[in-house]
Amino acid sequence: MKRLGILMLIFASVCCAQESGNYQPSETNVWGSEYPRVDSTGRVQIRVKAPDATKVKVNFWSGPKVDMVKQPDGFWTVTTAPLVPGFHYYNLNIDGAEVSDPGTHAFFGGGRPASAVEVPEPGSTYYSAQDLPHGEVREVWYNSKVTGSWRHALVYLPPKYDTQNSARYPVLYLQHGAGEDETGWVRQGHANFILDNLIAAGTCKPMIVVMAYGYARRAGQPAPDLTGKPFGSPEMLKAMQDMAAAFEDDVTQALIPYIDSSFKTLSDRDHRAMAGLSMGGMQTFQITLDHLDLFSYIGGFSGAGGMLVLGDRKLDPKTDYNGAFADPGAFAKKVHLLWVGVGTAEPERMRAGLQRLHTSLLDANIQHIFYESPGTDHEWQTWRRDLKDFAPRLFPQISE
Amino acid sequence: MKRLGILMLIFASVCCAQESGNYQPSETNVWGSEYPRVDSTGRVQIRVKAPDATKVKVNFWSGPKVDMVKQPDGFWTVTTAPLVPGFHYYNLNIDGAEVSDPGTHAFFGGGRPASAVEVPEPGSTYYSAQDLPHGEVREVWYNSKVTGSWRHALVYLPPKYDTQNSARYPVLYLQHGAGEDETGWVRQGHANFILDNLIAAGTCKPMIVVMAYGYARRAGQPAPDLTGKPFGSPEMLKAMQDMAAAFEDDVTQALIPYIDSSFKTLSDRDHRAMAGLSMGGMQTFQITLDHLDLFSYIGGFSGAGGMLVLGDRKLDPKTDYNGAFADPGAFAKKVHLLWVGVGTAEPERMRAGLQRLHTSLLDANIQHIFYESPGTDHEWQTWRRDLKDFAPRLFPQISE
Repeated sequence: MKRLGILMLIFASVCCAQESGNYQPSETNVWGSEYPRVDSTGRVQIRVKAPDATKVKVNFWSGPKVDMVKQPDGFWTVTTAPLVPGFHYYNLNIDGAEVSDPGTHAFFGGGRPASAVEVPEPGSTYYSAQDLPHGEVREVWYNSKVTGSWRHALVYLPPKYDTQNSARYPVLYLQHGAGEDETGWVRQGHANFILDNLIAAGTCKPMIVVMAYGYARRAGQPAPDLTGKPFGSPEMLKAMQDMAAAFEDDVTQALIPYIDSSFKTLSDRDHRAMAGLSMGGMQTFQITLDHLDLFSYIGGFSGAGGMLVLGDRKLDPKTDYNGAFADPGAFAKKVHLLWVGVGTAEPERMRAGLQRLHTSLLDANIQHIFYESPGTDHEWQTWRRDLKDFAPRLFPQISE
Repeated sequence: MKRLGILMLIFASVCCAQESGNYQPSETNVWGSEYPRVDSTGRVQIRVKAPDATKVKVNFWSGPKVDMVKQPDGFWTVTTAPLVPGFHYYNLNIDGAEVSDPGTHAFFGGGRPASAVEVPEPGSTYYSAQDLPHGEVREVWYNSKVTGSWRHALVYLPPKYDTQNSARYPVLYLQHGAGEDETGWVRQGHANFILDNLIAAGTCKPMIVVMAYGYARRAGQPAPDLTGKPFGSPEMLKAMQDMAAAFEDDVTQALIPYIDSSFKTLSDRDHRAMAGLSMGGMQTFQITLDHLDLFSYIGGFSGAGGMLVLGDRKLDPKTDYNGAFADPGAFAKKVHLLWVGVGTAEPERMRAGLQRLHTSLLDANIQHIFYESPGTDHEWQTWRRDLKDFAPRLFPQISE
């Protein structure tokens, strides 16, 4: 009987012991999937069934792009050189088709469900589930008049949120990167476990973390027709600016009011932070510096006002961001934390751009933190470390 | 600059107008993906780039399995015959590799991230987001001594849960099918929107819905080694029974106490229901009939005690389920609702099995509802309709 067959085969894959050596299945795998697997040196083995294919490649987005080798049993295999610890997106290319590996869960990146392997960082437990109180992640839908649509967001609530009825909490707005969505900080980043662990250790104040969907188009605004417009054309840049402006209004006019009316927040600027990675860092700089009446803590993770906003030039404190950096004393009074981070193995132009932002801020006498994640690329291990350094610096005025 | 390139390409895919005729992109698609797309008759067009492949097929799990046709531009395309409305899992086969379509979001089914297309049901709004109050879906992690692990579950809370401090709510435990996981009822089934819509219409009592991960292995119990054991062997059946028993203990000893201590529940048996689809229906029958001290409402969606438990025979009310059906009067006093459903287009053996359960229950004078979903297969449209019929029958004793 076919249904029973399916049930039993799935059951077998979930429950049955399978051989493995020094290699261990990646944490990102679906049940019972032995591949991808990782050894203690960080080497990754991939294996996929494609008996009739003539060429199969694996493409790590920030790592090796290598041909796989066909085995007599119809499977294709490859072993990489050791990869740096962390979460690595990849896809397969099977006879020219760019597809995901069915052996791993899907993580939304690059604008589609992507495969990923997790290379453990020896001794690092800060981003995994520990035996201590866990917060909740809530899915919420809010009605945005800006976009004219119901929008989905994830909200982390710290342990005891429900039982401490009189407590109110500060809020961190935390944004994903381009090609990702509101699920990234939990699924890929483990932001919830990072916060659980920091809060349990007493090194971070209990806070609400809001993770929103970082794309927006104004209600009634047609999708821009960029047919025939070259890459980087003024029309495309204009469309990007329109999207950024619509998202800014969505955050300030729809999301923040929704959060403050739905959760037990401390709703003044002294208890509101924003941070984001890559595109989310750019959005953070734009939104917070346009709205210092709303925010007092600012984090840019591998994005910030780096080269994507400033290009290859230095920050001009008098004019950039409407002169928000023009008066260091006034800025320091308003902004309790300005935090910029980058991985030392990120692409040179990203690294140099953020380094230049850092020196620009130094030259302008703007107090800030510049954090460099050793050995990590434009990937989630960098942003996990960023959050681990950033979150404990927030809301020092709150007593335990 | 490569990063900017990625950002702008993704942006273009999110924001830019693309041509379409009577065909509309499936609701399940990632941003900007025009395929799969569906016309008003339910025909589905699939398109995938695989320039060097020699054979590409599409496999609808409960539908057509068809060869795709290579086009001069390196894309493969196909148009299906009209499909019945609803959510249809499928995968691609590219030169022998079973993979997902990068054009759709990933839905966990068949033990891995699967593709799916949504064929709209004309006039049906009951499972989509409407402009009315929305409940929340919370992700929770609970520590199970039964399995010795942190387990993940989703919990739907009705609108106003947070603001009506003195209110307490009944609970429906709602289980996924084999190969799916705790995300299925929200992602595939839209259970949250079904409940939102029913509650707003006043046809269903506000309730908490708990969606748990339906696989379990006891703490310290090794994975059974089924190497060389034939499909359906006594060893495999034993392993399945062990898993079912472990899940039963997890629900009754870990999950229910966690839910009742974490949420504002009505925690007596008169305010606790359980239902599930396919494997989840079997689990529901086993768990509720073993624990009538805990449950008083029972729903089996395309599963129940059908052929997977009973085989090809009728129910024996004196012996099956430890004689829970032996005394119709006693059963009716204890069980406020016994509900069994099946789609009329399900595989014959499933349909016949549930029909036989229905007639067995009639013969045994057991009060129950037997619901047949017209024209739908062993798929989510059946189970959405099941929930829409089942939920309003729960907890009639609660006044508005």
